[in-house]
Amino acid sequence: MNPTITAFRDSPDEGQGLARDMRVRWALEEVGQPYDVHLLSKSVLKEPEHRARNPFGSIPTWEAGGLTLFESGAIVFHIAETFEGLLPTHPNGRARSIMWMFAALNTVEPPIVDWEMAHFFEKDKSWRDEHLAMIEESVRGRLGDLAQYLGEAEWLVDDKFGAADVLMVLVLRRLDGSDIVAEYPNLAAYVARGVARPAYQRAFAAQKAVFEAAQKQRSC
Amino acid sequence: MNPTITAFRDSPDEGQGLARDMRVRWALEEVGQPYDVHLLSKSVLKEPEHRARNPFGSIPTWEAGGLTLFESGAIVFHIAETFEGLLPTHPNGRARSIMWMFAALNTVEPPIVDWEMAHFFEKDKSWRDEHLAMIEESVRGRLGDLAQYLGEAEWLVDDKFGAADVLMVLVLRRLDGSDIVAEYPNLAAYVARGVARPAYQRAFAAQKAVFEAAQKQRSC
Repeated sequence: MNPTITAFRDSPDEGQGLARDMRVRWALEEVGQPYDVHLLSKSVLKEPEHRARNPFGSIPTWEAGGLTLFESGAIVFHIAETFEGLLPTHPNGRARSIMWMFAALNTVEPPIVDWEMAHFFEKDKSWRDEHLAMIEESVRGRLGDLAQYLGEAEWLVDDKFGAADVLMVLVLRRLDGSDIVAEYPNLAAYVARGVARPAYQRAFAAQKAVFEAAQKQRSC
Repeated sequence: MNPTITAFRDSPDEGQGLARDMRVRWALEEVGQPYDVHLLSKSVLKEPEHRARNPFGSIPTWEAGGLTLFESGAIVFHIAETFEGLLPTHPNGRARSIMWMFAALNTVEPPIVDWEMAHFFEKDKSWRDEHLAMIEESVRGRLGDLAQYLGEAEWLVDDKFGAADVLMVLVLRRLDGSDIVAEYPNLAAYVARGVARPAYQRAFAAQKAVFEAAQKQRSC
């Protein structure tokens, strides 16, 4: 039986592939594992049925073989541990890949989420621009460090694509709509390499189809 | 040979155990693994020598057997994988523990770090209180969900202390100095259970001794 993931029936990003189910879809496409998608409208996310999957009431979640998981990083890691291809087999390479998974989510992503939140929730605040400038300074701090580390390498660990790249590329994609990543040409090229992968393209098309179906239904 | 971790020579938290080396110290104390500490002053964190350990120039890092790691979550996970006692042996329990490690760092910690940052860096802004109120609303959102999940359980996974608790207790401790955690009596009791553990106490004393030594040296 295929694993089942949850995703937004009507994603607030309008099919741009920025919702976190994209991380899980991409990882599954990379390892060639088919999956089922259980679509949820926003109104049921905080209901008991979904909170039993994820106490924080968000997507994505994972259900397979009696195991229910939430937290995109943990699901991608579970996929990488279960199927071959997203984690090095050498113990040190494996540990360094896991390190970069945590770094994507705990060091690089938080200021980027702050940047998104300021755009959405501080729109009407007189101090929004001043706050955004502070946030952008910390985003640039992280990106500058990351760019220096990456240098001319193609991928984060041992120059081989893996689970950490799934997370990092999609974290950086959250800055689409700004020119910040373009200030770091090697990071922009890294993101471009990621999204050019056939597995990414399949995952992107799958989530976009969900948005388009919802849009079509609305217009009927 | 013992693993070597890095920590602040002169921690900005003044020995309160809020710096992230505490996560690694506590995990090591829980599994009974002695360790060496390489103390770094803030001025050398961004130097090439330390950036070779951690491209983002922060503490803690881990060095042992030819492996260098940064990112506290990844180091705690590596300790939990290497030594017994911090991860369930059953695969599903193990996956759920890893999930809660990611949840502590990617879902619960980010708004709490925002709360700290607003205190430090927005001190002189006219809009600080308004922004803090918005942040506290999202902190309470996370804590309310967490409290509801935890209920009467002692620990996050299968009611057995583990790596996820190391991270979550210390993430919640970052709110010390506010009364926010106290609004959730079961979370306050959870943190109290964590810090009462002998391994926590040893880790806390070790980091406090570093601060006291630095203070003594300054007064000479």
